[in-house]
Amino acid sequence: MCDRAVTATFAQMWAELEPIGRHAQTGGYRRFAWTAEDLTLREWFAAQADARGLDLVVDRAGNQWAWWGNPDETPGAVLGSHLDSVPDGGAFDGPLGVVSAFAALDAFRATGRAPSRPIGIVNFADEEGARFGIACAGSRLITGALSAATALALRDVEGTTLAETIGVDAASVGPDPETLRRVGVFVELHIEQGRWLIDSEHAVGVGNAIWPHGRWRVELPGEANHAGTTALADRVDPTLALAGLIQQARSAAERHDALATCGKLRVSPNAVNAVPSHVTAWIDARASNEAAVRAVIDQVRGFAEAAGGSVLEESWTPTTMLTPSVVDQLATVLGAPVLGTGAGHDAGILATAGVPAAMLFVRNPTGVSHSPAEHAEPADCAAGVKALTAALGELV
Amino acid sequence: MCDRAVTATFAQMWAELEPIGRHAQTGGYRRFAWTAEDLTLREWFAAQADARGLDLVVDRAGNQWAWWGNPDETPGAVLGSHLDSVPDGGAFDGPLGVVSAFAALDAFRATGRAPSRPIGIVNFADEEGARFGIACAGSRLITGALSAATALALRDVEGTTLAETIGVDAASVGPDPETLRRVGVFVELHIEQGRWLIDSEHAVGVGNAIWPHGRWRVELPGEANHAGTTALADRVDPTLALAGLIQQARSAAERHDALATCGKLRVSPNAVNAVPSHVTAWIDARASNEAAVRAVIDQVRGFAEAAGGSVLEESWTPTTMLTPSVVDQLATVLGAPVLGTGAGHDAGILATAGVPAAMLFVRNPTGVSHSPAEHAEPADCAAGVKALTAALGELV
Repeated sequence: MCDRAVTATFAQMWAELEPIGRHAQTGGYRRFAWTAEDLTLREWFAAQADARGLDLVVDRAGNQWAWWGNPDETPGAVLGSHLDSVPDGGAFDGPLGVVSAFAALDAFRATGRAPSRPIGIVNFADEEGARFGIACAGSRLITGALSAATALALRDVEGTTLAETIGVDAASVGPDPETLRRVGVFVELHIEQGRWLIDSEHAVGVGNAIWPHGRWRVELPGEANHAGTTALADRVDPTLALAGLIQQARSAAERHDALATCGKLRVSPNAVNAVPSHVTAWIDARASNEAAVRAVIDQVRGFAEAAGGSVLEESWTPTTMLTPSVVDQLATVLGAPVLGTGAGHDAGILATAGVPAAMLFVRNPTGVSHSPAEHAEPADCAAGVKALTAALGELV
Repeated sequence: MCDRAVTATFAQMWAELEPIGRHAQTGGYRRFAWTAEDLTLREWFAAQADARGLDLVVDRAGNQWAWWGNPDETPGAVLGSHLDSVPDGGAFDGPLGVVSAFAALDAFRATGRAPSRPIGIVNFADEEGARFGIACAGSRLITGALSAATALALRDVEGTTLAETIGVDAASVGPDPETLRRVGVFVELHIEQGRWLIDSEHAVGVGNAIWPHGRWRVELPGEANHAGTTALADRVDPTLALAGLIQQARSAAERHDALATCGKLRVSPNAVNAVPSHVTAWIDARASNEAAVRAVIDQVRGFAEAAGGSVLEESWTPTTMLTPSVVDQLATVLGAPVLGTGAGHDAGILATAGVPAAMLFVRNPTGVSHSPAEHAEPADCAAGVKALTAALGELV
């Protein structure tokens, strides 16, 4: 299979995925775990595996694995990513890794070389956590980082539990060491969620670490009152504290070379003519090192407490190192730069569980992520497939 | 009926109302128009009218009128207010006016004097607009300030239309000049929603005007992006504009001796790990004069537009004067101070429609309104009944 044929196959797969779950108004994707859209994507994955003569295995969390060769004899090299999306997400986050994996397998096979071990392609279930609130649920379940009891009881906004909707027997959901043993090494190709590669001469980089990150809930109490009759001096208006909080988080992030975001707010009672009785704000903070994140949160906490509020840590994930030997191997064979990322990925969950794993990032000229504006140029997608093919050639 | 008997009747009525629609956790009231709680309150009103031998009439908007004498012969003097509440509102806003009206009628009758014209007591429907979003819906409908078509199509959060739930024939809802002709004068007693009377020697004041007020919707566009991967410099984060907007609205209100409140926010997509694509904020602004409100909004608009946003006026109500001759008459006979208010009331709707109307305010030692913390001392409630009885004696 020549480059042109690989490119044509890539384009055809891309075209097949394009309409699935795309929202007519926003142009964004709504592909949430275990919905009709997700099931269509899973059927597409199964059909791609079938067309290539691969053996499809669905594990105890519903992740799909397509194998060439028998990984129970020798652990294989696995490529892939996920197919679900955030609300109104872009076309590339997830699918680029899956489509590139199939294209890389095609290109590898076209060389006629016999692989030294099996090759697998994976579609991780519920990576974004958009429906049930826990990201990387599929990989966390099989590694045991997320308990089956907790996961199965999760509810979506309509009250449906994961147990009711997951496409595998709920009673069998849980850690799956048998599946993990089959994975000798995992390489997840992903669109870059940032602008690091824009300013480089490289279309593809190697990911080596996932930044430490966490979520904090900030409670800002106020005093409910009538907006039309309460003198300014008599108010305890929590939106004033909110305004300060947003600015403090930003300035702390600037000072400590970190990221801080106030992306979610809840106002009570949220009525036009009422001074709010309470505001809850969530702060997401990340940095290349843990001390920077802690410094940001210390500043946020100091401000919130001075305003009579409180700060609760809802989640904290320390630095996740992808497997250094795999990272070095890929960087060397590809001659590619090495970069960290602020986003969580299934590759990080696997690496933490002791499965060798690394990532490839493909340049994104908008730098934008989780939005219809995320993008990769066709030439860069092709460079991604080429890099993944070279990686595969190195690993098998 | 001596003062003590009036006080006892007042206390009994108060005790009967106390449990209806009270939320166990918050201690606040949830008495929304045409809900089960509201229907219980309406039955209570009808029972009070019946116990006093009054004729109950329900008008074309569902407002309840209890008449002593025939107002079709001579327009009457009407007392009363409303029984519904905002979410988690207090016990006094509305009910104090209705209970005081019955108590004042009892006290007047106890004098044995024959009134020169009929006396009525009214319970206006849906004053707070908590369920369908339009305040004073009952009085606006009968005066024609709100069209039947608009009102009947209003939906609550569960999608129920007013037409489906209103307790009168939806086909007959509309302007009701016949009902308005029966009202020679209307006096609405209400708990003060502010602190003006706290610093005065008077427990009761006379309301003369409702401040000009309006609502503005501020759109602050951003750019959706991943909170974990987007450099601060690359963000278009609308929460930063929001923080500035909240501060601008407050400082503008301080400068112009006005009130401005940002009580309602909508964040899209409102996800912890997403830089928001958009924030919508609502500003409620009021002052004793229109120029001050306009000056506040001009400053808000300037800020929002500089941030790439826009401001839309959703509603605007100019100064509402209560009827000067009635205000003067009550202030003189009661020796009470005269004050304006920032809140809308049915009395203002009637006055604007040409029905003579004024208000009495009863001191509120917390100054708080639309909250369980709103309060009036028993002695001040008694002073309110006494003033309302004196007003009635002057008017009939």
